[in-house]
Amino acid sequence: MSGVSQIRIRPALSGDVAAIVAMLADDALGRGRERVADPLPPSYVQAFERVERDPNIQLVVAEGEGGEVIGCLQLCILPGLSSQGASRGLIEDVRVASRYRSRGIGEQLVQWAVAEAQSKGCKLVELLTHNTRIDAQRFYKRLGFQASHVGMTIRF
Amino acid sequence: MSGVSQIRIRPALSGDVAAIVAMLADDALGRGRERVADPLPPSYVQAFERVERDPNIQLVVAEGEGGEVIGCLQLCILPGLSSQGASRGLIEDVRVASRYRSRGIGEQLVQWAVAEAQSKGCKLVELLTHNTRIDAQRFYKRLGFQASHVGMTIRF
Repeated sequence: MSGVSQIRIRPALSGDVAAIVAMLADDALGRGRERVADPLPPSYVQAFERVERDPNIQLVVAEGEGGEVIGCLQLCILPGLSSQGASRGLIEDVRVASRYRSRGIGEQLVQWAVAEAQSKGCKLVELLTHNTRIDAQRFYKRLGFQASHVGMTIRF
Repeated sequence: MSGVSQIRIRPALSGDVAAIVAMLADDALGRGRERVADPLPPSYVQAFERVERDPNIQLVVAEGEGGEVIGCLQLCILPGLSSQGASRGLIEDVRVASRYRSRGIGEQLVQWAVAEAQSKGCKLVELLTHNTRIDAQRFYKRLGFQASHVGMTIRF
C-alpha cells in the first residue's frame, strides 16, 4: 500500500482509447482477448464511437496526478420495467494500471459509478466478475455489494 | 410437460405493460418488488417510454396462440472496448406466465435473444440470475450458458 492516490475521473476521449486497451490487455483474462498493436486495431476505435453515441453509457477514465490515464470503468444506465420501473446500473470493464493498484483508485472509480447510478434514479447496481477473480469479489463486498447472483455467459 | 407451445415473439407495445408487470410480480422475488394496481403505477409507463427511446434495448413479448401475452424478455446490446471492441448482449427480466411454464416458451425467448445478439455483432451474452433460482441456472446451462461469473449487486 502506498496510500490513496488523488485521481480525477472524467469522460474518456478518443485519445484515451490506446491507454484503455493497454489496461484491458494487462490482465489475466484480458491478455488472451485483446490485441494491442500500433496503430490500434480499428475495431476498438469503432467501438469507442458506438459508446460515445450511446447516451446511456459512460466510459470514464481515472487520471493520475501527472495527467496520465491509470484507470477506467464503464457504467451503463439501463431502463427497464422491473422494480417498479427503476433503471439499473451495470458496471463493466473496471481496470487499474498494474503499477497503480492497491492505492484506492478502483474504489474511487466504483464509488463514483454507484453514486452516478443513484443520481440517475437506479435502485440497483449490478456487475459480473469472473469466478477466478477472488480479490475483486472481496473488493466489491467491501464496497457494499453482495454476491447475490450467478453470472452466466455464453461466448461465440 | 404439455409439449412445446407455438409462440410469436414481437416488440412490446404500451398496451402490453400491464401484462408484463403481472408476470414480473408473479414470481418469488418479484412479488415483494412490484406493485400491481389498476391503473398501473405511472413509474412503469415512464420506464416503458425510456425503454422505447433506447435504440440498444429491445423489450419483447411472447404471444400465445390466442394472441395473449405469456412471456417477456429484455435484451440490451452494450457497446464497449473489451474483447476487441465487440458489443455484449445482456438479457434481463425473462418471465413466462405461470400457467404456461415448462412448454419451451422461455427457451424460445432466450434463443431468440442469443441469435439477435449474435446478429448484432456480440461475441458474448451475459445475464445475472439470483443464487436461489436453481432451476433457472439449470435451464441456462442447458441452453449453452456457463456459470462463469459471480453476479454482484447493491440495492438502494
